[in-house]
Amino acid sequence: MSLEPLRAVLPPHVLVTDPVALEAARADKSGHRSVAAPLAIVEAEEVAHVQAAMRWASEHGVPVVPRGAGTGLAGGSVAGGGELVVSVDSMRRLLDVSLIDQSCVVEPGIRNAELNELLATHGLWWPPDPASRAISTVGGNIATNAGGLLCAKYGVTREWVLALDVVLADGSRITTGHRTVKGVTGLDLTALMIGSEGTLGIVVGATLKLRPLVEGAVWTVGAFFDDETSAAAACTAVTAARIRPAIMELVGIDAVTMLAAYTGRPMEGAFVLVQTDDLGAEATSEVVAGILAAHGGRVERTDDLSESDALVQVRRQVHFALESFGTVLVEDIAVPRSRLAEMFGACHAAAARHGVRLAVTAHAGDGNLHPTFVFDGEEPSEAIWACANEVFAAGLALGGTLTGEHGVGLLKRRWLADELGERQLELQRAVKATFDPQGILNPGKAV
Amino acid sequence: MSLEPLRAVLPPHVLVTDPVALEAARADKSGHRSVAAPLAIVEAEEVAHVQAAMRWASEHGVPVVPRGAGTGLAGGSVAGGGELVVSVDSMRRLLDVSLIDQSCVVEPGIRNAELNELLATHGLWWPPDPASRAISTVGGNIATNAGGLLCAKYGVTREWVLALDVVLADGSRITTGHRTVKGVTGLDLTALMIGSEGTLGIVVGATLKLRPLVEGAVWTVGAFFDDETSAAAACTAVTAARIRPAIMELVGIDAVTMLAAYTGRPMEGAFVLVQTDDLGAEATSEVVAGILAAHGGRVERTDDLSESDALVQVRRQVHFALESFGTVLVEDIAVPRSRLAEMFGACHAAAARHGVRLAVTAHAGDGNLHPTFVFDGEEPSEAIWACANEVFAAGLALGGTLTGEHGVGLLKRRWLADELGERQLELQRAVKATFDPQGILNPGKAV
Repeated sequence: MSLEPLRAVLPPHVLVTDPVALEAARADKSGHRSVAAPLAIVEAEEVAHVQAAMRWASEHGVPVVPRGAGTGLAGGSVAGGGELVVSVDSMRRLLDVSLIDQSCVVEPGIRNAELNELLATHGLWWPPDPASRAISTVGGNIATNAGGLLCAKYGVTREWVLALDVVLADGSRITTGHRTVKGVTGLDLTALMIGSEGTLGIVVGATLKLRPLVEGAVWTVGAFFDDETSAAAACTAVTAARIRPAIMELVGIDAVTMLAAYTGRPMEGAFVLVQTDDLGAEATSEVVAGILAAHGGRVERTDDLSESDALVQVRRQVHFALESFGTVLVEDIAVPRSRLAEMFGACHAAAARHGVRLAVTAHAGDGNLHPTFVFDGEEPSEAIWACANEVFAAGLALGGTLTGEHGVGLLKRRWLADELGERQLELQRAVKATFDPQGILNPGKAV
Repeated sequence: MSLEPLRAVLPPHVLVTDPVALEAARADKSGHRSVAAPLAIVEAEEVAHVQAAMRWASEHGVPVVPRGAGTGLAGGSVAGGGELVVSVDSMRRLLDVSLIDQSCVVEPGIRNAELNELLATHGLWWPPDPASRAISTVGGNIATNAGGLLCAKYGVTREWVLALDVVLADGSRITTGHRTVKGVTGLDLTALMIGSEGTLGIVVGATLKLRPLVEGAVWTVGAFFDDETSAAAACTAVTAARIRPAIMELVGIDAVTMLAAYTGRPMEGAFVLVQTDDLGAEATSEVVAGILAAHGGRVERTDDLSESDALVQVRRQVHFALESFGTVLVEDIAVPRSRLAEMFGACHAAAARHGVRLAVTAHAGDGNLHPTFVFDGEEPSEAIWACANEVFAAGLALGGTLTGEHGVGLLKRRWLADELGERQLELQRAVKATFDPQGILNPGKAV
C-alpha cells in the first residue's frame, strides 16, 4: 500500500513511519501485542488531519485503528500489520469552559487528570474517574465509557458527555448531541458513540457536562475482616442503609496477603475502604463505621489526610503488589451488588479447580470486580483461559456483564454472543455497518 | 386488510376494534389528530401479544403505532388510517424491587407516580419527573427520554434505565443493557432505544436504576421581579454560585399576568421558584434568597408545607391559567443556561412581529423553555407557525435544541435537518432501517 497520496495531503511530521513509534502502537496496557507493526501513524494535530486520513483509508479500504494514549486494558487500540493508526494523542486542548452552563469543550487527547486540574481553578469537576486518570485521555474514557471508583455515586462517562464531534469512516464530520442539559432531537448517537471503542467513528471533540467541585472534608473508613463473605455482607449492609458513599472498595484476602509481602506492612484478611464526601460526610462515616464493626470489621475512621491516604493506599497499591509477583491479567466482571459475595466465591472455586493464582478486588459500591490472574512468563496458560471462561460464565449466570468498564476490545470478543444473544449481536453488527459499510474502523474489536 | 390471522392468535378481548377506542387513539395531548381512525388496537397483556402483533404486522407490511397512556405532547403516539396500535397501557406491573441493587423491574405501562408510590415504601425513588408523572407511563418516559423539573440536579430518564426488554419489528425479542451499575459490552442499544419514540422497537419491560429517597425538609424560595431579564440573571447567578437546586423555574411576565386573572390573586412581574433539598437545604436556601434579593427580587422563603405549596402552585397552575384563555400549543426549546435571557427576548420579539400571544415559562435550572402559544379556535394560525419557526431558529442560533423533553413526534419533523445536518439525519435513518427494514414502526415520527 503506497502512502504517497496520504503523504501528499498531510504535513510531513504528521505522517509518522518511525519504526520505534510503529512498534509502540502494537500494544496497549492489556498485555496484548499484535503480530506485526502497523503501516503508519497519522499523529493528528487538527480535525482536518483525521478527515484526510479517513478519506484515504476509505478510498483504499485500509483498516484504521483510532488511538489516544494507548492505556487501554482490553486491546482496543492495538494496531497490527496493514493497519493505519489515527492518533489524537496530540490534540489535547481545553477549548472552552462555561461556569454558567457547567460545560466545557475539549479535544479528545486531553488527559483526564490534566483536564480536572484546569477545571478545578473554575471550581468545576468532570466526574469520570478511571484509575488511569493521570495517563488516560478523555477520548479514551469516551471510547470505553470509563467508570472508576466514584461511579456508583457520580455515574459513568456516558452521564457526563453532552455532545460529540465525530469524523466518520468516509471522512465526513458530524456533531451529535447538544450543548444543553436536556435534548431529545433524533436518536441518541452521542450515547451510541460512547463505549463503541472506535468502531463507529473517531471522536475529535467533546462537549462535557460538568458539576461544581464537591466541597468539604472527605472522611475515610477502612476495615479488615476475617473473611470475604463478611466483608461483602458489610458492603451490602451499607447500601441497604441507603448510604451513598463516594467510594466503596473491597480487596480480597489473597490480594491483601500479596500486598503485605510487597509493602512489608503487616496486614491480613479482606479489606473494605469507604469514603464519604459532601455535606454530612462525618456523620455518614460514623454510621458506616458502625455497620462495618457490626459485621466483624476491625475499623479505622479518619479525616486526617495522611491517615486517610494510608488507608487508600491499601487499595491503590494492590495492582503494583500483584505485578511484583508475576505477569498480571486483569478481568472486569460486573454483577448486581447483591451477588458480590457469590462472585468472590465463584472466582476462588474456579481458581482452585484450575490451579491458578487469582486475586480479586472489587468496586463494591457498584458490583464491578477485577479478578486478576498472576502468573509466570509472558503469556497466560490454557488453565488461565479455562478459569477465565468459568469466571465469565459465573458472572453472566449471576445476572452480570463481561466488562464493567474496560471494554470488549480484542480480549472479550469470543464471549460476546453469550451475553448479548445472537439476535442482538446481529443487530449491533448491522448498526456498525451503517456507520462503516466497508468495515475499516477498528476491525476485529468490540463488536 | 383482514384482521382474521391476527384475531386467531390473540385472546378476543386483546384485539380491540370498538370505534370509541379507535377514535381515542387518533390523538394524544399534543393537540394533533390524525385524519382517520386506526385499523385496530392490540391491548397487550403480555409480551407474547406484542410479539404476535409485530409478526402479523411485519408479514403484512402494516404500520404500527406503539402507545401507552396517550399523554405525549409531540404526536408520537397518534395513530391514523391503516395503522395498528400496539398498546402496552395494561401491562403495568412492578415485577421486582431490590434495595441492595437499587433497581427494579417494571412493565412499560406502569405510571410514573404509581411506581414511585410503591418504591417509596422501600425508601427508594426513580427520579425522572415529567410534569405528567401522575398520568404518563414509564414506557412513555423512556420513549421520549422525559425530563421534568428536577433534571438539572437528578438527570433525565436515560440516566435511570439499566436494561430494556424490547420486541423488534419482526416480533423477535432482545434484552439490551445489564442489571449492573456499570457495563460496556457492545454498543449501547439501551441508550439508543431511549428517546427513539417507538421507531426502533417496542419496550415491553425495563430494569430501572433507583436511588434512596432524598431525606429531610425541602426549602422553597419564591420571588417576583420587575422584568424577565433580572429574573434570568438571578437564576444565572444561582448557578454561577455553584448551587445545585432541586428545582429552579422561571415564569414569564405574560404568564404571571394570565395567572393573576385566572386565580384572582394579585401578582405581577416575572416569577422565580427555587427549591433546595437534602442535607444543607436550609442554609442553601438562605444563600439563594440573598442572590435573588440582590437581583431585585421580592423574596419569600419557607419550609412550611402550605406556604411552600402556595409558591409552587404559581408554577404548576400556569398551564391551566393559559388554557383558560384559549387553545394552547406548548413548545419545548432548550438552550445553554447562559442564553436564557436572550431566548426569552427572542420569543417576545418573534411574538410581537407576528402579532400572536406567546407566554413563556422555563426550567431555568437546565435551560429548557416552554414558550406557549394561546389562541382562539382549534388550529394554530399561519402566523403562529411562522412565529414558532422563528423561535426554533433563534433557539438553534443560541446553541440550543428543538426539543428538550417532549420529543420530535409529528410536530417537529420539518426542522430536524436544521438541527442535525443532512449527513447525521441520513445516518439516523440508516440506523432506524437496521432495526426496522420495512419501516413499519411508527412511520412518519421522530426521524
